Amino acid sequence: MTEGSDDIQALIAMMARLPGLGPRSARRIVLQLIRKRGQNMTQMAQLLGRVAQNSRECAVCGNITDREVCGICTDPERATGEICVVQDVADLWALERGQAFRGRYHVLGGTLSALDDIGPDDLGIPALLTRVGDERISEVILALNATVDGQTTAHYIADALEGAAVKVTGLAQGVPIGGELDYLDDGTISAALRARRSL
Amino acid sequence: MTEGSDDIQALIAMMARLPGLGPRSARRIVLQLIRKRGQNMTQMAQLLGRVAQNSRECAVCGNITDREVCGICTDPERATGEICVVQDVADLWALERGQAFRGRYHVLGGTLSALDDIGPDDLGIPALLTRVGDERISEVILALNATVDGQTTAHYIADALEGAAVKVTGLAQGVPIGGELDYLDDGTISAALRARRSL
Repeated sequence: MTEGSDDIQALIAMMARLPGLGPRSARRIVLQLIRKRGQNMTQMAQLLGRVAQNSRECAVCGNITDREVCGICTDPERATGEICVVQDVADLWALERGQAFRGRYHVLGGTLSALDDIGPDDLGIPALLTRVGDERISEVILALNATVDGQTTAHYIADALEGAAVKVTGLAQGVPIGGELDYLDDGTISAALRARRSL
Repeated sequence: MTEGSDDIQALIAMMARLPGLGPRSARRIVLQLIRKRGQNMTQMAQLLGRVAQNSRECAVCGNITDREVCGICTDPERATGEICVVQDVADLWALERGQAFRGRYHVLGGTLSALDDIGPDDLGIPALLTRVGDERISEVILALNATVDGQTTAHYIADALEGAAVKVTGLAQGVPIGGELDYLDDGTISAALRARRSL
């Protein structure tokens, strides 16, 4: 009976398993919630319940939404003929925050991995190929992580789209905005040098 | 409509205000919860709701509990005649985890502070003095932080208890277990030297 009540202990234990949290930070958060319980703890409980109830994957692109098909897939202004392929919903959200892309998305939900036995069918790659035909797509942008797994998956998709009349592109690699050369790894520096552009 | 739905955005914004979290970690946590929503998101919502509904301060000591008077205050085995005075419920929980103290507690909920206009009445110090008389207390242990505010409060309480027939003690100061002298501040080293003990 250390932490107040069984419910409080169960809540702390559950919070402690969330990414980036541990027992200490979970205790701190739960205590803060209880201290301000009049303000927003009940509201947070209701929100959590509603999100748990209503969230689902968009039937078309795999984005998280509370409808059958997400707002991006139903927005006619975003039928630009471009599909941006991302590994994860978090990547989609990051791209949306950047507001640089006005087309539609396709969330793979992972990368190809022989080790974890993840093949093209597990990632919805057949669905992507179908969409490219059905939605009259002119360009597929592979916005995958610049890791070995991400690039393997990008190459696989590029190969699979070889026959289709569609442009396949990837994100530029180079020096990040605000990046200092001294702190960058060798691979990034050589990539940026190889892809140098005239000013 | 970046992050899925209005509810998801509201949940992220609310989580981002919790101690130790920010927008990035809140997004990561909410996404993880949604991914595993079948497992425990609903359960967490219910727990949060129940804790918000049932939590209150113990009428005697100020501990967080789901009853009128907390389990420590009602446990007859803990009527040892000792009261441990702590600043915060988190400190009480920390002492309980250590399992070194078997008496009862008194949570101040803060420290005296002229700057923030917090006086003895705001901290329930009169209630503490009443308890010392009513519960036949023989020792008051001031387990307050070793900060200026904490020690000011400790001195104030020690003064207020001067007339009562009660022993007033404070936590020992010295080298923490596992502490290396080289990394300790000068104040701690001199305190540990002054309070040296024969072996």
